[in-house]
Parts: sequence; C-alpha cells; structure tokens
Amino acid sequence: MSSETEVREQPPETVAAKDYTEPPPAPLIDIEELGKWSLYRALIAEFVATLLFLYVTVATGIGYMRVSEDDKCAGVGTLGIAWAFGGMIFILVYCTAGISGGHINPAVTFGLFLTRKVSLIRAILYMVAQCLGAMCGVGLVKGFQKSFYDKYGGGANGLAIGYNTGVGLGAEIIGTFVLVYTVFSATDPKRNARDSHVPVLAPLPIGFAVFMVHLATIPITGTGINPARSLGAAVIYNKDKAWDDQWIFWVGPFIGAAIAAAYYQYVLRASAIKALGSFKSTTNA
Amino acid sequence: MSSETEVREQPPETVAAKDYTEPPPAPLIDIEELGKWSLYRALIAEFVATLLFLYVTVATGIGYMRVSEDDKCAGVGTLGIAWAFGGMIFILVYCTAGISGGHINPAVTFGLFLTRKVSLIRAILYMVAQCLGAMCGVGLVKGFQKSFYDKYGGGANGLAIGYNTGVGLGAEIIGTFVLVYTVFSATDPKRNARDSHVPVLAPLPIGFAVFMVHLATIPITGTGINPARSLGAAVIYNKDKAWDDQWIFWVGPFIGAAIAAAYYQYVLRASAIKALGSFKSTTNA
Amino acid sequence: MSSETEVREQPPETVAAKDYTEPPPAPLIDIEELGKWSLYRALIAEFVATLLFLYVTVATGIGYMRVSEDDKCAGVGTLGIAWAFGGMIFILVYCTAGISGGHINPAVTFGLFLTRKVSLIRAILYMVAQCLGAMCGVGLVKGFQKSFYDKYGGGANGLAIGYNTGVGLGAEIIGTFVLVYTVFSATDPKRNARDSHVPVLAPLPIGFAVFMVHLATIPITGTGINPARSLGAAVIYNKDKAWDDQWIFWVGPFIGAAIAAAYYQYVLRASAIKALGSFKSTTNA
Amino acid sequence: MSSETEVREQPPETVAAKDYTEPPPAPLIDIEELGKWSLYRALIAEFVATLLFLYVTVATGIGYMRVSEDDKCAGVGTLGIAWAFGGMIFILVYCTAGISGGHINPAVTFGLFLTRKVSLIRAILYMVAQCLGAMCGVGLVKGFQKSFYDKYGGGANGLAIGYNTGVGLGAEIIGTFVLVYTVFSATDPKRNARDSHVPVLAPLPIGFAVFMVHLATIPITGTGINPARSLGAAVIYNKDKAWDDQWIFWVGPFIGAAIAAAYYQYVLRASAIKALGSFKSTTNA
Repeated sequence: MSSETEVREQPPETVAAKDYTEPPPAPLIDIEELGKWSLYRALIAEFVATLLFLYVTVATGIGYMRVSEDDKCAGVGTLGIAWAFGGMIFILVYCTAGISGGHINPAVTFGLFLTRKVSLIRAILYMVAQCLGAMCGVGLVKGFQKSFYDKYGGGANGLAIGYNTGVGLGAEIIGTFVLVYTVFSATDPKRNARDSHVPVLAPLPIGFAVFMVHLATIPITGTGINPARSLGAAVIYNKDKAWDDQWIFWVGPFIGAAIAAAYYQYVLRASAIKALGSFKSTTNA
Repeated sequence: MSSETEVREQPPETVAAKDYTEPPPAPLIDIEELGKWSLYRALIAEFVATLLFLYVTVATGIGYMRVSEDDKCAGVGTLGIAWAFGGMIFILVYCTAGISGGHINPAVTFGLFLTRKVSLIRAILYMVAQCLGAMCGVGLVKGFQKSFYDKYGGGANGLAIGYNTGVGLGAEIIGTFVLVYTVFSATDPKRNARDSHVPVLAPLPIGFAVFMVHLATIPITGTGINPARSLGAAVIYNKDKAWDDQWIFWVGPFIGAAIAAAYYQYVLRASAIKALGSFKSTTNA
Repeated sequence: MSSETEVREQPPETVAAKDYTEPPPAPLIDIEELGKWSLYRALIAEFVATLLFLYVTVATGIGYMRVSEDDKCAGVGTLGIAWAFGGMIFILVYCTAGISGGHINPAVTFGLFLTRKVSLIRAILYMVAQCLGAMCGVGLVKGFQKSFYDKYGGGANGLAIGYNTGVGLGAEIIGTFVLVYTVFSATDPKRNARDSHVPVLAPLPIGFAVFMVHLATIPITGTGINPARSLGAAVIYNKDKAWDDQWIFWVGPFIGAAIAAAYYQYVLRASAIKALGSFKSTTNA
Repeated sequence: MSSETEVREQPPETVAAKDYTEPPPAPLIDIEELGKWSLYRALIAEFVATLLFLYVTVATGIGYMRVSEDDKCAGVGTLGIAWAFGGMIFILVYCTAGISGGHINPAVTFGLFLTRKVSLIRAILYMVAQCLGAMCGVGLVKGFQKSFYDKYGGGANGLAIGYNTGVGLGAEIIGTFVLVYTVFSATDPKRNARDSHVPVLAPLPIGFAVFMVHLATIPITGTGINPARSLGAAVIYNKDKAWDDQWIFWVGPFIGAAIAAAYYQYVLRASAIKALGSFKSTTNA
C-alpha cells in the first residue's frame, strides 16, 4: 500500500541474485505428463470442484427465486447469490490449489496456458473436466427440483432486456480480466518470495474478485466469466435463449483472460522493458 | 491457483525425504487417553462451542422471524442467518482448534474418525458433548423467549413443502461433503508443511463452507449438515415434524462425511495409486 | 480442526522446555507506568478508536432508519448495521493492537485485567478513555444530524418490548462471553508460538465475534456487549429509557467477561489440573 | 489485542538496536525516478486499478437502481454497493501493492506524500493517473448503458437533501481519516517486523475500512473519500449538482488524510516525545 514495498523489493545491491525462483515455462505438449497419476488426480479435483461450484450457486439462485415469489424480502437476495459465487470460488481454490492449481474455470486455465504455466494437453483436459463437472452440478440441481429449475431460468446466462451483444461481450471481457488479473497477482512468484515475510491468503482475493464481478454484472448478463459455468447451465436448461447467447460467454472470458495475461506478462512483470529498450533500468526495475 | 504450487511440491530430487510429517493413525481404542486432563478439557471445549453455536444461530433465526412479521424488510434476512451459521463456525473453530481440534459437529468427528485422526472413544465422547451442548444452546434461546421460539419453529430442521425425502437426503449428503472436504483440505499435513511459506487461515474457509451450504439449502431442509444442531433443536422444540425428518439429518451428514473421507484418502492423498498399481509414479505423485 | 494440532503441540520429549514464553503477570498498581509516554499514547489510541467505532456504527444505524422510512428496502438493513459493528472492531483492533492492545471496550479491558494482562491503573484509565471516546463519537453523529438522531433513537441500547430484564442481562452476558472468549483465544501465547508456522490474523475473528453477537441480539437489546458504547449513546441521547436499562449494559458485559476469563484461565489453560490434582498429566496436557 | 504485544515490542535490553528498518524518507523531487521503467509501470497499474474500481462500483450502483425500480427487494441493495467499494479496494490493493504501493486514491497518495513515503513528482503523477483511470472507468459504464446511467445519477457524489455543506465536509474528513489511518497502520514498518511472527493480510483491513465508511455515509454524501472517484463521476455525468459539491470531495479527503498523517507521525509513532520532552522514556517507548 506504500512505496515501502518497493524498498523491500530492492535488497542491498551486493545481493545481485533474485530472491525468488521463476518456475520454467510448461512445455506446450508434455506426453510424459499423461503417464502420471497426479494429472488424473488433478482432473478429478477440477471435475469435483466445478460440480460443487455449480451445484451450490445454481441451487442458491433457484431457491432464492422460489422463496421470494411468496415474500419479496425472504430469501438470500441477489447479494446472497453474488456471495455464493465468490465464496464457493474461495473455498474451492483453497481446497484444490495444491492438487490441480485450483482453476475451476476454463478462462483461468486459458490465461495460465497463454503464460506457459500449464501445457496445452493439461489445459484442454482441464477444460473438459470443468465442463463435465459443471453439467453434473447443474444436473443435480435440476434432478432435485425439476419444476422450480425450469420455472426460474435454470441458472443460465443470457443478456438482460435492454442490453445489446456488444455490452454483454464487454461486460464479460472486463469481468474476466478482473478475475484473471487477480489470479496472476496471487500466484506471482515474486509475491510468494515476499510472502515469507508478509504472508497472504491467495484464495480469498480470488474469491472476492468473483464476488465483485457478480455484484456489477448480474443485472447485465447474469455474470458468466466462466465458460464451464455458462455451458453447464445451457446444456441442462437447454432452451433457445441460453444457446443463442452462449458464444458471448466463451469469447468474452477468453479475450478477457488473454488481455489479463498480456497485461501481467508485458506490463507488470516488466518484460516490456526488453521490447522497448528505451529506459535505463536497474536489474529488478 | 496455478501449477506453480506443484512445482514447489517437487523439491530437487536429491531431497528424497518428504518435507512433512504424517501423524501416526490414532488407535481405535486408547484407554490411556481417558486418564488425561486434555481429553476432558477438549470435551468441555466442544460442549461450550456447540452451545454457543446453537445459541447464536437459533437466536438469529427466531429474532429475524419475529422482527420481519411487522416489517418484511427489517431483520437480518436469510442472508444474515446464513452468515450466523458460517461466521460462528469460523470463530469457534478458531477458538477451539488448539484445544479439541475444533470439530463442533458429529459429522466432522465421524469423518476424522474414519481417517484415523481420532480414536473411537474420543469420537463417541465428542459427539455426546456436541449433542448436549446443542441442546443447552437451543434451550437457552427457548428459555429467553418461549413464545417466539415455539411460534417460529424453534430452529428445527425439516423438509420444506414440495421436496421429498430423497432430495433432502441428497442435499444433506452434498452439503456435508462440501464442509468435510474443506476440513480435510485445511488440515492436510502436506498443506501445513507448505504453509510455512504460503500460510493459511484454516478456520476461515471452513466457516465459509458452512455459509455457502446454508445459502444453497436453507430453502430445502433449513440446512443441517450437523447432526448435533438438528438433534438439539428437535429435542427442545419437540414437535412431530422435527422428529419425523430427524433421521435425514443423521444419515445424510454421516454419508457425506464418509464420501469426503474416501475422496480425500483414496483420491487426493493418492493412496489410490497403490491400489491401482497401473501408473508409473514419482515418489510424491 | 483435527487432532493433528495436538500432535504438533507435543514436540519430541527431549525438548522439555515450553516453546512459548508466558509474559509475567502485570502488577496490580504500576506507578512507573504513569511516567511513560507509551501509556498516554495508548490512551489516545483507545480514545480515538472508540470515537471512530461509535461514529461509524451509530451513523450507519441512523442513516439506515432515515432512508428506510421512504423505502423499506433501501438502506443497508440490519445486516449492514451488524457488519458496521463487527467490521469496525476488525479494523480498529488491527490498527491499535500494537499501540494499546486494541481493547476499545471496557469489558475486554476488564477481562484482561482479571487475568493480569494489564495493571489496575491502566485498566481504569483505558475505560475512562473509551467512555469519553464513545461520547465524542456519538456526539459527532448528533451534531451532524440532530433531528434524525433524536427521531431514530440515538443508537441507545434498551430492552425491546416483550423481553424482561433477566433476558436482557442473559443476552449481554453470553454475547460478551463470545467476544472475550475469542479475544483470549486470539492472544493466547501458546497460539502465538504455534503461529510462526500456522499464522493467524487475530483481529478478523474478533471482529466476526462482534458481528455474530449483533446478528443474534439486535432484536433483544440492540446489542451492547460494550459498556462504553452503551454509556456513550445514553449520555448523548439522554432519555429516560436509555438510562433505566443502562445498568444491564455494564453488569451483563462485566459478568460475561469474568466468566470468559475464568473459563480461559481454569479450563482452557489447564490451571485447573493443579486445583483438581486427580489426573495423571503430561507437562503440557 | 492484549498488552502482550507490547511485551513483545520490548526485546531484552541488550538488544539495543531496533528490530525493524525505517525506510529513508523519499526525496521531495527525484529526477532520477523519471528515467525508471518501474515508475511508468506503477502509473499504468494505478490507472488500470482505478479504472476497474470505478467500473465495477458504478456499474453495481446503476444496476441496483435499475433492477429495484421494478422490484424494491431485487438487486444487491445498498449493502451490496458498500461491499463493491470495499471489496474492490481489497482486491486492487492486493494486486497492485507490489507494483505501485496500491494507492488507487489521491487522498492516500497525499497522506503518503506528507509522511515522505513518496516523492512530490510521483505523488502528482499518481493522482493524474488515478483521475484519468476513474474517468475511463465511469465512461465505460456510461458507454454500456447510457440511458440508465443518466437516469440513475451516474454514480456522482453529492450532498443528500437535508444536510448542509459542513456536515458533508465533516463526513468526508472523518471517513478519509478512517481509511488513511488504516493504511498507515497496515504499512507501519514496526508492524512488518512484528509480522514475521504475527503475520497480517494488509489489504483486507484497508478494504474493510472503505466498506465501513460507505455503510455510514452513503446516506449523507454517497461517500467519496477518494477524489479521483468523485472527479471521474462528475466529469462523465457532467451535471451542475455534481460540480457544485465537487470541492467537498477534494478538500474533505485531503484534510482527513493530513490529520491521519499527523496522528500517525506525531502520536502513534511517538515523534511527539521529542517535541514535548517532558516524559522519561525508554528507547522504543
């Protein structure tokens, strides 16, 4: 919060070496990975986490709408729905970070793939696991309360009346940027090194990022920023409206994640300096 | 949140030893434990914590319903009730973790017994202390406001109209799975070892797990996921409806906890690899 | 959350010494303290913190009631008021912990005096500073909006209609017990020692404890659990009702704090063992 | 939370040296800084963070008002708006702390300039970046939903009916004091030293401070405590009312930040002792 942090980042010049280790970039295709149990364990963890994410959040939404039909003020409110999305991401990232990295979202996986944190194979398999998990999670909600599920829109994303496609796409791009930017900030190796002194609880700000974006864009698109969430609801709800807008909830999040990855890589991590070559710079500027 | 975590988990191959200590499994029956003051202190802590848990949460619920009779929008709302359950678990786990392990829930105790973290004797005594504490906590609320208590349903769990037994049972199973899965993740010895570098505040995600499940299933069962909570309210409220559905709030949570224990033990902790024997694996895969 | 914590508490038997330092008990009367600037700095910090606490919380309450007169659902709601109390304690304890210990509440000071964490002189001076700060904080709200302040009850505590004195007293005792018990748990030297490995953010659960108690007892007494808060509002509001019930908000919190101190000292810290002398016990049982 | 903290602050007298390093005061004008990429990276980070802050918070406010026109209880409520402001500051300070110090607010920059944590040049450039970012963020919301934006007040700050200028100014001064006081507490080098033992998550209390002040003063001024936020909304909304009160949202926050800086410097950091010279004091009293 103050520039002291920067002071701390500049240890005595005699210590020329970085105080953090940059993990090597993940290979694009890593066949060996396919023979390791840890990959399959990670896929199971992503599947289960996305299932629980959709189950809890969609059940919260349907339950709220059912209850508030009789009594406007009963039910957890839109604020409760936003908490459900943010809070679930908090606990699920917390629970799966050590197993799969805690993506639970194809847009996050895409961003981490672009910055070479995961291989192409792992990225694709993660996305498949996430989408299957999302379908199962929404399927459970429908199985538990079919009539209410259909009546109250099935948790599907879609443009609210009065907004055009461009606005929906823009809202999804910026929303996903907020999330993926937070993810990159939370997993920065520089931060991890610093955190032996000023420790952090990384999943909490990530969950809050999701909470925040839902506060802002539930009235516009219902808030996707997670293609698995949007696809899962669309598949199980399976009405025209959900399918017509579906592309927004893939294109938007992927663009947002890509911009966040570029911002992190070329601006915040200062790789830009090499490209620009026009400033005198210290080693860790 | 990224696969960096995994990189960190794989220290240079020269360091062959694990960087964490697995505590030995608790014996099934440990007679010596009965002679130690620390066991009785733990039982008192579980009793007091469960008492406070039920007192605050049921008082919140009754108070909300009384206030909102005059004015629909006054009172803390269903969102406030969900916060009461989640927030109390956060602070009570925080306060009792060092004394009793901070279970405050027979389903959590059952899950930890199944994975041999507590002995059978300790598990049974904990459950008795939790149930007695829950009864006293609800009893206090009734003592403070008998007429309101009876009028507003006494905090008892029960199936909402329109849902059958199977749905209630399913909701309790999945809800308890979310909670106990978070508990296992938070107390993983591997995580504790890692946490000297990326520290965590374990009780917070556990409290959030309870908050989340309440958002989703208050409209279905009122949300149990804690047999002591459901029993305590049923005993003090003592109406037919509360007793008819009571079994759901024991069978559901115990099944959910057992599935979470199995998921943790056989999938996440990778014991499965020994059973399957079909993958080449590194030491800590 | 599991009994692993206890395992960690029992280091190899060869390390006979405790791994934490118990600070020596504060002297009852410490004249030398009066000559130190650090005492006066602490008094200023307590005064300012209690002023800000009352200013923000009472302004939140008055503002909510004014806004919801026109529109029931506008305003932050009772949930927002509960957050204001809990959230302010979180940030103020965070800000003043290193200066004054972050009491901001005569009941907390009383509990810490009973367990000899602060001297008698310091305890009395703290309480005076807290009460003066509370009056100034409420005074600011009244100065800003006198007509609304008087119209909406001035933030004063008092028994709600339908509850007798015994219930109010009981609610204050248990509420303060929850808070002071959390304070003792958060400042336990044993926990601090352990926390070099599993770190905590002590002010957060303390703030949540205040949030929780407000959810439960706003409908009963408006929630005091802080005699400075109740006195400050009574002095500035200065109506009969506020003064008639005032004793409840001193006697209740002081009894609750005393019980929490006894529970911590004689049960959780296991001093009881020496009194009972009937169990075989290990050094740190 | 107890006086133990102070005990910890007074290491054995043989350790005469401070256990923390005070960073040297920033020079007033540091021309060399202008040649470093890290300054421009920091400006970009401040610009982007303030843009996202305004985009999410103003979109939340407009969306809530639109939705609640049809149904009073739909929408995230004033509580949701307060969360949006506090939660965004939490995640944005978390994300930018290591890059720019995470100010996102000219009043914070001003306070840190007064205490010589940032140079004059950096302070001015930060404020420009923050104001430009705020305009772009509000501009995005207007671009997405022009008619709703104009209809629902454009997120502009202004005095509510029934309050005079003095009250608005007072509310802004105290509100900003709460925020900047928390910022100073969170970035205190003494605390950072202590935090290797009792670690903290600094951005969380800073975010909560913003949340708290919004709970209290949304009904009075809409809550500024951030001149960039108020200017950005006024520029894009561009109606008389927003401009008439604009000075309040610059003068108030700057006075509040200055008082917080003085309180921190002359009271809490005990520089006062040198000025007063009337107490016997130990080295770190």
